Amino acid sequence: MASALSSKKAIVFVAQGSEEMETVIAVDVLRRAGIQVLVLAVEIPSGPVTCSRGVRLVPDAYLGDNSIKISTFDAVVVPGGAGGAEILSQNAQVRCILSDFHAQHKIVAAICAGALAIKTAGIQSHLSEPLRITSHPSVSDQLVDEFSYKEDRVVVDGNLVTSRGPGTALEFSLRLVSLLVGADKAREVAAPMVLNFSL
Amino acid sequence: MASALSSKKAIVFVAQGSEEMETVIAVDVLRRAGIQVLVLAVEIPSGPVTCSRGVRLVPDAYLGDNSIKISTFDAVVVPGGAGGAEILSQNAQVRCILSDFHAQHKIVAAICAGALAIKTAGIQSHLSEPLRITSHPSVSDQLVDEFSYKEDRVVVDGNLVTSRGPGTALEFSLRLVSLLVGADKAREVAAPMVLNFSL
Repeated sequence: MASALSSKKAIVFVAQGSEEMETVIAVDVLRRAGIQVLVLAVEIPSGPVTCSRGVRLVPDAYLGDNSIKISTFDAVVVPGGAGGAEILSQNAQVRCILSDFHAQHKIVAAICAGALAIKTAGIQSHLSEPLRITSHPSVSDQLVDEFSYKEDRVVVDGNLVTSRGPGTALEFSLRLVSLLVGADKAREVAAPMVLNFSL
Repeated sequence: MASALSSKKAIVFVAQGSEEMETVIAVDVLRRAGIQVLVLAVEIPSGPVTCSRGVRLVPDAYLGDNSIKISTFDAVVVPGGAGGAEILSQNAQVRCILSDFHAQHKIVAAICAGALAIKTAGIQSHLSEPLRITSHPSVSDQLVDEFSYKEDRVVVDGNLVTSRGPGTALEFSLRLVSLLVGADKAREVAAPMVLNFSL
């Protein structure tokens, strides 16, 4: 099921405690669409990243690796998982990347507790109107004051894409495919996955 | 979101080319239910397993490790992904485990192309009635002659549980939770995942 590589490139961040379903679904679905995905860990290189339920993932690169040209990417994705979202949302370089990508009209995406990184990145502070956002229900109270909080399964506000949990990760990832390489590609990728919803 | 460990134990097989969404969703959901899950690779120990879309997983153990007491497990899960399913379905030890577990009325579960391992394990040959089974649509032609092939998203026939693809992996994994530790636990695990279906 190889797909011709598109010219689009996405970063999927991962940290200790990231939700493995959300992380892997984003990586897998974007790659099915031919998007070049870099699984980027924030910690010092020290082997695999242990996710929220103990799945161990080997990242493609680490954020401290200066050979990674962050500016060449078109999208950035922040998975949930309470522990991972805490690390990612508090990492100064991650916050800077999210803020820069948003200002440059690149796709900034977060799912579940990952939406907290949208807050800590300070994206809202540059804007006059509150951004429409969603997140895992358990962290909504940290977002409702600053943002226009929605309970839709995927919320798109311009180049900001947010979603709710493992059960929305396929819809979220396919929306990213649609935004990056088009709705036709999203439908093509969706067909063999045996989904229970239509695009 | 730690869950009290149940006494139930499940093996989730993985091989080069296994579908990473199907593998990780099974591991994650079963662990959310307190089931002890062993991610068991079949290849010779040589580092992480590269899945079908390039995600690299570090297994918990290898099949050749004699310290693993296979007989103490209550369930075995075979993920899809064409390459991984081919390796797993052709592995003599995997076939033996599947056959033994089925005969011992333990849970034998396969999703997507992983259902081919049910065929190669020879489980049907011991039975007079054809087992009800499903799989990824792309491999159904290899199963229709021998089995009673169904197109339901999850098919349960006694202790054999089969399913269709990445988009059915949550339903499949929650059904395994229900069979192993009960429907109440499955509903408890499902609630915070923000699913688009009810149990």
